[in-house]
Amino acid sequence: MTRSQRRAALGARLRAAELDAMLVSDLINVRYLCGFTGSNAAFLVFADDRPPVLATDGRYRTQAAQQAPDVEVAIERACGRHLAGRAASAGVRRLGFESHVVTVDGFDALAGELAQAGTELVRASRTVEALREVKDAGEVALLRLACEAADAALTDLVAGGGLRPGRTEREVARELEALLLDHGADGVSFETIVASGANSAIPHHRPTDAVLAAGDFVKIDFGALVGGYHSDMTRTFVLDKPADWQREIYELVSAAQRAGRDALQAGANLADIDAASRRVITDAGYGELFGHGLGHGVGLQIHEAPGINATAAGTLLAGSVVTVEPGVYLPDRGGVRIEDTLVVANGQTPELLTQFPKELAIL
Amino acid sequence: MTRSQRRAALGARLRAAELDAMLVSDLINVRYLCGFTGSNAAFLVFADDRPPVLATDGRYRTQAAQQAPDVEVAIERACGRHLAGRAASAGVRRLGFESHVVTVDGFDALAGELAQAGTELVRASRTVEALREVKDAGEVALLRLACEAADAALTDLVAGGGLRPGRTEREVARELEALLLDHGADGVSFETIVASGANSAIPHHRPTDAVLAAGDFVKIDFGALVGGYHSDMTRTFVLDKPADWQREIYELVSAAQRAGRDALQAGANLADIDAASRRVITDAGYGELFGHGLGHGVGLQIHEAPGINATAAGTLLAGSVVTVEPGVYLPDRGGVRIEDTLVVANGQTPELLTQFPKELAIL
Repeated sequence: MTRSQRRAALGARLRAAELDAMLVSDLINVRYLCGFTGSNAAFLVFADDRPPVLATDGRYRTQAAQQAPDVEVAIERACGRHLAGRAASAGVRRLGFESHVVTVDGFDALAGELAQAGTELVRASRTVEALREVKDAGEVALLRLACEAADAALTDLVAGGGLRPGRTEREVARELEALLLDHGADGVSFETIVASGANSAIPHHRPTDAVLAAGDFVKIDFGALVGGYHSDMTRTFVLDKPADWQREIYELVSAAQRAGRDALQAGANLADIDAASRRVITDAGYGELFGHGLGHGVGLQIHEAPGINATAAGTLLAGSVVTVEPGVYLPDRGGVRIEDTLVVANGQTPELLTQFPKELAIL
Repeated sequence: MTRSQRRAALGARLRAAELDAMLVSDLINVRYLCGFTGSNAAFLVFADDRPPVLATDGRYRTQAAQQAPDVEVAIERACGRHLAGRAASAGVRRLGFESHVVTVDGFDALAGELAQAGTELVRASRTVEALREVKDAGEVALLRLACEAADAALTDLVAGGGLRPGRTEREVARELEALLLDHGADGVSFETIVASGANSAIPHHRPTDAVLAAGDFVKIDFGALVGGYHSDMTRTFVLDKPADWQREIYELVSAAQRAGRDALQAGANLADIDAASRRVITDAGYGELFGHGLGHGVGLQIHEAPGINATAAGTLLAGSVVTVEPGVYLPDRGGVRIEDTLVVANGQTPELLTQFPKELAIL
C-alpha cells in the first residue's frame, strides 16, 4: 500500500465512525500516514477526499518537504492547535482525536482553540493503530530484513566465540550491536539485553560489567531497526554443561514457546493464545515465575497492537506480525526466555521471521 | 541530594499547593524520585511524611527491589489506577496528577477508579520537572562526565582523520558513537546527527549514505549518556578551504553563540537570552533561517526545562544546565550550528561543560 492508500483506509474508518476528520497526534502514526519522522508534528486527515495537512515546526521545513512531498506542510510550533483550527475553518463538525495520546493539558489547549467553533472533539483512540496492526507487503519486507540482520548478527557473535566466560555483559552487547549495523541495520530496535547468571532472572535487565562465568545462563534479547521497522528476538544460552534445573526450565520454556507458536492462528482469541503457552508453565508449577504477557505486535514500534496476554480482548488478525516469548525466571538463580517474531497467515503456519536455532546451545 | 531529599522537596511543594499527595506518572520523574528505570511504573508521594509507594508490573519485581530498595513496591499492571486507589484509601482529598503526561484515556481511568471516593484529581503539571530544573551536585557530576566523553570522542574522531572526503555520514556517525562508548558512555544521548553538504541545512538530519566531499560543511550534533544523564554538543566543520559564504555564516553563528552564552545569567528572562543571540543573526539578515529556539535544559532528558526561546516565560535559575545552540541554515546549500552545554552559576560566568574548540576548523 502507498501512504495515500493508508490515508484512504483511514478515511473509510472515519466515515464509519461518523467523524468528519481526524487529528493525528502520535508521531509514529504521523509517520505511517505520511512518511514524516520529525519530533514535533501533527497530521489532519479528512473523512472525504480533501487533501491532508501535515504541521511541524521550522526546524523541519526541509525534511518535511523531502519526506512528505505529496502533502501540504504547515509550519507551526503548536501543531495540534493549528490543525484543530484548520479543521474548524474547513467546517468539520466532529473531529476525532487520539485520546490515548493527547494529554489532559493538550486536550485543554485543543478545546480552547475550538471554543468559538462548532467543532466537537470526539475520542478516537487507536484508530490508526488498528490499521497498523495488519502489515502490508512493504512493511513485512522491512520486518524480514530486520529479523535477518538480527539472525546474522547473533550467528556471527556465537561463531566468533563472543559468548564466553570472562567477558562482560556490556562487551557482549556492544559487539552484538556492532554486528547488527554490519548486517545492514540502521540502528538497534531497543536497548540490547544481555543478562548473565542471576541477572538472567531479571526479565528486562540492562547490561552491566558483570562477567560471564562457566555454568551461567546468558539471556540475549535484542533487535535490528531497518527502515523504521523493529525486529525482536530472545535466545538463552548456557556456558558449559547445564545443571539439571537449567535443563529443566529451558525445556519447559521451549515447550511453552512451541505451544504459543502452534496457537498462533488467525481468528484465535488473543487471551487463548497466551493461555495455550502459559498452561505449559503453570502445569509444571512455575506459573508464578512467568510474570509477563506472551507477546506483542511489532512494526514501527517495538511494542504495538496486538498485545497477547491474559487480559487481551479481541482476536489475532491475518497479516499481523507478533512475538511469542514465554519465560521462567528463578529469582537470584537465573531465567530463560525464548522469543520469536512471526507473520500470522490465514489458515497457514505463521512465517517465522527470526530463524536463529532454539535448541539449548551449550557454549 | 539523596532521592529521599528530592521526595521531601516535592512534599514541600505539594503542601504549598494544598495537595495531600501526588501521583507521578512520567517515567523520568519516577526515576528521579526513586531510582527505578522500568518501562511501566507510577509513584505516589504524600505531602506529609507517610512513605511513598512505587507501582510496577511483574516483569520488574527484581529490578524494582534492587533500584528502589528504600520504598514500598506494589506489583500491579495498571500502576496509576492502583496508586489512585491507594491514595483514596489513605484518605487523600486532593490528589495532584501530571496533566501534561496523563492522557485523556488515562484520566478517564483514574476518574473511574475514584468515582466512589472523596478524592479530587487536581492538575499539577510539571511539578517534578520544576524540581529537576536545578541540578544537584551528583547530577552535575554525571553531566560533566557525559560532556567529557563527548569531547574526547570528537577529539579522537578528528585526530584520527575520521572526517574526510569519501566517507559516508553513516560511517562517521558510527565511528563517533563507538568512540563515545570507548570513553565511558553507557550509550548515545540521542540519534547522532552527521549532516554533510546540503544536508547540513536540515537542522535535524539523520545520517545517510551521502558521501562527504571537499568543500562541504559537516555538522555533527551528538551526545553521550552517562548514568542516565545526557550531554549535547554541536560542532560544524568544513572540509577544505571554506567559500566566502561558508566563512560568513560560520562567523555569524559563532558571534550569535557567544552572545547567547554571555546572556546566560541567573535571573535573566529566558526570552531575553534567546533574543540576545537571535538579534545577531537577524541584524545580519538571516533571521528567517534560524527557525528554532536558542536552547534547552539537559539532564535525565535530552530536552527538558527550561526552554530558551522567543516565547519562553520565566527566568534562568542558578544551577540549571542548558544548551546554547543558534544555527543558520541555507536551504539546499548548507548550514551551521554551534552548541554548548553549560551550568548556570549565580553571578559568575557559566561553567562550560562541552570544551571542544569552536573556531572554524578546516579539515
